[in-house]
Amino acid sequence: MNKLLDGINGPRDLKTLSFGQLEKLAEEIRDLLIHTVAANGGHLAPNLGVVELTLALHKTFDSPNDKIIWDVGHQAYVHKILTGRRENFTTLRTTGGLSGFPKRCESQHDVFGTGHSSTSISSALGIALARDISGEKYNVVAVIGDGSLTGGQAYEALNHAGHLGINLTVILNDNEMSIAKNVGAMSEYLAKMRTAPTYSKVKHDIEYLLRRIPAIGDSVAKTAERVKDSLKYLLVPGMLFEELGFTYFGPIDGHNIPLILDVLDKTKSVKGPVLIHLLTRKGKGYAPAERNADKFHGVGPFCIETGEVIKTGTKPSYTQVFGDALIRLAEKNQEVVAITAAMPEGTGLKKFAAKYPKRFFDVGIAEQHAVTLAAGMATQGKRPVVAIYSTFMQRGYDQILHDVCLQNLPVTFALDRAGIVGEDGATHHGVFDYAFLRHIPNIVIMAPKDEDELQHMLYTATQLAAPVVIRYPRGSGLGVELKHEFNTLETGKAEELLSGKDLVFVAIGAMVEYCRNAAAILDARGMSAGVVNARFVKPLDGQIIRQLARDTGIIVTVEDNVLAGGFGSAVLEFINSQNLNWVKVLRLGLPDKYIEHGPRSYLLSQYGLDAQGIAASAEAFIRQFGARK
Amino acid sequence: MNKLLDGINGPRDLKTLSFGQLEKLAEEIRDLLIHTVAANGGHLAPNLGVVELTLALHKTFDSPNDKIIWDVGHQAYVHKILTGRRENFTTLRTTGGLSGFPKRCESQHDVFGTGHSSTSISSALGIALARDISGEKYNVVAVIGDGSLTGGQAYEALNHAGHLGINLTVILNDNEMSIAKNVGAMSEYLAKMRTAPTYSKVKHDIEYLLRRIPAIGDSVAKTAERVKDSLKYLLVPGMLFEELGFTYFGPIDGHNIPLILDVLDKTKSVKGPVLIHLLTRKGKGYAPAERNADKFHGVGPFCIETGEVIKTGTKPSYTQVFGDALIRLAEKNQEVVAITAAMPEGTGLKKFAAKYPKRFFDVGIAEQHAVTLAAGMATQGKRPVVAIYSTFMQRGYDQILHDVCLQNLPVTFALDRAGIVGEDGATHHGVFDYAFLRHIPNIVIMAPKDEDELQHMLYTATQLAAPVVIRYPRGSGLGVELKHEFNTLETGKAEELLSGKDLVFVAIGAMVEYCRNAAAILDARGMSAGVVNARFVKPLDGQIIRQLARDTGIIVTVEDNVLAGGFGSAVLEFINSQNLNWVKVLRLGLPDKYIEHGPRSYLLSQYGLDAQGIAASAEAFIRQFGARK
Repeated sequence: MNKLLDGINGPRDLKTLSFGQLEKLAEEIRDLLIHTVAANGGHLAPNLGVVELTLALHKTFDSPNDKIIWDVGHQAYVHKILTGRRENFTTLRTTGGLSGFPKRCESQHDVFGTGHSSTSISSALGIALARDISGEKYNVVAVIGDGSLTGGQAYEALNHAGHLGINLTVILNDNEMSIAKNVGAMSEYLAKMRTAPTYSKVKHDIEYLLRRIPAIGDSVAKTAERVKDSLKYLLVPGMLFEELGFTYFGPIDGHNIPLILDVLDKTKSVKGPVLIHLLTRKGKGYAPAERNADKFHGVGPFCIETGEVIKTGTKPSYTQVFGDALIRLAEKNQEVVAITAAMPEGTGLKKFAAKYPKRFFDVGIAEQHAVTLAAGMATQGKRPVVAIYSTFMQRGYDQILHDVCLQNLPVTFALDRAGIVGEDGATHHGVFDYAFLRHIPNIVIMAPKDEDELQHMLYTATQLAAPVVIRYPRGSGLGVELKHEFNTLETGKAEELLSGKDLVFVAIGAMVEYCRNAAAILDARGMSAGVVNARFVKPLDGQIIRQLARDTGIIVTVEDNVLAGGFGSAVLEFINSQNLNWVKVLRLGLPDKYIEHGPRSYLLSQYGLDAQGIAASAEAFIRQFGARK
Repeated sequence: MNKLLDGINGPRDLKTLSFGQLEKLAEEIRDLLIHTVAANGGHLAPNLGVVELTLALHKTFDSPNDKIIWDVGHQAYVHKILTGRRENFTTLRTTGGLSGFPKRCESQHDVFGTGHSSTSISSALGIALARDISGEKYNVVAVIGDGSLTGGQAYEALNHAGHLGINLTVILNDNEMSIAKNVGAMSEYLAKMRTAPTYSKVKHDIEYLLRRIPAIGDSVAKTAERVKDSLKYLLVPGMLFEELGFTYFGPIDGHNIPLILDVLDKTKSVKGPVLIHLLTRKGKGYAPAERNADKFHGVGPFCIETGEVIKTGTKPSYTQVFGDALIRLAEKNQEVVAITAAMPEGTGLKKFAAKYPKRFFDVGIAEQHAVTLAAGMATQGKRPVVAIYSTFMQRGYDQILHDVCLQNLPVTFALDRAGIVGEDGATHHGVFDYAFLRHIPNIVIMAPKDEDELQHMLYTATQLAAPVVIRYPRGSGLGVELKHEFNTLETGKAEELLSGKDLVFVAIGAMVEYCRNAAAILDARGMSAGVVNARFVKPLDGQIIRQLARDTGIIVTVEDNVLAGGFGSAVLEFINSQNLNWVKVLRLGLPDKYIEHGPRSYLLSQYGLDAQGIAASAEAFIRQFGARK
């Protein structure tokens, strides 16, 4: 094949390439990206957008001595390909293969692990400060998208870096998108800059004009000085960044390698923090992704020719059921409004947004603001439903505790992608939510056993005079019938699905179905296991636990959450507070470690949370304690 | 006395007052503020700074129909005085008295409860959106300090509000301080504006200059147009806010009532979001507070004549011991650096900052950034110590989980003001930290029994190759001897202080001393109670728990944290995982509710966490279970 890419085993191999060769290499990289993601799924559009940028960075800088930090990190595939991971790249996002995000343990070129948004300038600044304290010399570069710039932490870091005047390069990868079309005043500001003529174009005209301002008297001399100063705003389109202490360069065509190389080279010698504003196109070079960058942001396996995603089933996803149910709810209840943090598609709110544009709010990648915004609305009688992935909700913890629950405001949080999410790995699993939420006073926490129950939980939540969390997993539901009528579920009431003599599974959320299957396995082995759908993590159904304790003497709690502080821990606390110490409790859930990436079903089985694993643990427990009942 | 203030029972009573009367009222209010805070302690300087602003707001707007939201809320005393709480004002921060922060349950004029920083624009925007959806008409005003503007959430909200173009007034109360002297590029930007001539002053000069630019040819006409446009930057000093979609007014003397009234009046009719930039002086009108606004930000009872704080003891505080120990540590270990989020004084780092200015970083009210900045430093071999109050650390939860612990980076978190903090109340108690931290993988969590142990824990933390949290209470230590030599504490090892036959207290942090006293009380009553200083919440000392279980059969865990998911919950999980179900465990700690304000000792006693309460609970437990051992 005689590919250039075959000879690239590290950044050093780029140093001697010509512009033409770099452009050919870009093409080859795009080909590898498209073929790998078409097979494995992944973040395609963001990576297609940064091929030229990544090549230019690794040609200019000397990684890993120089440090390159990728915000969010879903756009680091090209970086991985260029830093010694080309041959392994086809293992991307597969079990034991390359992670879809930068990982320190994977390569010394991955200087800071990412996954969540808007952290890159903070970590890059930390690295730059460490460098200066130690008197070392190297470059530190953060690459951040305009979407990530809507996250408050990015601004906190800009504000600090600008203040310090430290040597640091921030590359603003402006593709006018976060995951969906970007929102916010900053985004409009950037759009305005896109059309601004660059310095070189207007320099001549400006100087001509300035010469024509005649000599002036003392009385207005100071003002004249200020007029000239103010012209900086014309010469430098990124004055907002300049005001925050950065030297601004741009906007620059982010697909023009010689131009990027030129700017990177120039800015190397600039003292103090620099912001380079690059204009890129998400999905660049693959027509279906250019047309629909939203869909190809993160995508499952697809057909390269047509761009059609390969369907893996016909059951509706929890996400779809949530979105549809919320529309029906909004019809019935005028006070219902929906809020997303840059995820209208991912959270299933796109149809809602189209149908109720005035009752839908996309706040950008700004989970903190999303939560308090909802709290404000709730004080005025609205019933906000805030749809955020479980893992990203971590960023709104303080706001849930301090703004919503302390005031007992009726905000509903719909936590999609809870539990194990699969291929996105450690940064994206939603396995902490029970633990970081259930100690918050006033909060109600539910998880549905199937997609139909999700509807009724959503309905119930918007009836309650309390903050409510509903968490549900990624992917398809069970394919159960979706009832048209909403039911109100009694708060804090579990549902007994199956009675058993030897033990009872008290399962929550997606684990209920696995426990049913585990009970069937046990039944075939001559053991009688009951199944209770807990429905509520808080308030816990104490009555049923007390009764089960009496009936079987063995309770097995099952959750797809870390065990520490999780659902089973809540059951232990209840049993302890009621002095039911004679009950034997086995808690199944996730261990005290970060869970790696891999297919959801594989990981559940690895951690003993599929039906076989649950049955096996239960059987062993019965053998140990069953006799003592 | 014939005070004007005696006739002010609500905002309506302000409407007819003349400028002169308002100024007299301002004086009377300052008098009440100074006398009340001198007696009760509280936030003096911030409130002295907003007397005129608050008067102008309540004269212009019609609260509670119009909504006024106070960011942080420690500057809402004047608002409380003017909205029907004048007579109760002397109960400020006392048990059952007025809260030191806005509280929805206290008055309909407190439209949104606050305590933590940077939430006001979010909640105000939520209220304004609710208003517009419902087609109602009223004004929404957020008052935010320049310090709070360093918090990323404020920027998220500005970005969203500017994008929406909604009617909303943001008052930037610029006193050049957060709690300490403000930091950040934004702060320097504001400082620049402070000296900018206002529109009216330069208008004449500008027009004169523009007239002197002669007629120009077509070729540069467009550029000339842009030159004129760019002059907006000169006319409008707050262009940064204008770029974010706000109409900017200012800077305005924040102590000039007629001027503020005039601006508020004018801006009422402006469409879209408005930002009014007010210059105020923290501590205004009380010389000691003007001189030392930092000290008088939040202050204990003091002597009005001298401004001297009334000393309440000679024992060094945990805060002081931490600050001193860190200096000694930094001498020994060049890699140690310190980070605070706008609290150099409160966290005890002021001396460190003076001694090691290049190894000290105040990032502003930006906890998220503080955590990830530390993570970045740690990747390069630094040993960052991040000192943040327990309650404010809630805002860095995701960063601790995702940036520090996932990468197992050796960052030390020093959580001051953990447990019950006292008079600041529900928004400030640090009673959730064990619960929101201990489920995070890789983390080590310690709490010292006294101020000497704090030193050794700090030393130990900076030796460990892991993220470490050390949490300790507000106020004085026990007065124990402070050893000069640092000891390394064995990770996950508890300390047995007293052996007992009937039960054993397994206490953590400040609760250890209370348990010692409880043991003495029990001893006097003929019961033998042991005391174990747990030291580590994670990893838990399983060995000692197993042994104690064997020895006494009764364990009483004691923590000044919520019970749900807390330390005792960790003990239950351990006992459960080891099948030690025959042990009787009583967990003492805080219930599942928000704790009100009041003196720390009073609240501990209210919740049964003083020695008497602990002894009483233990005795009852022994009576119930002691026989079954």
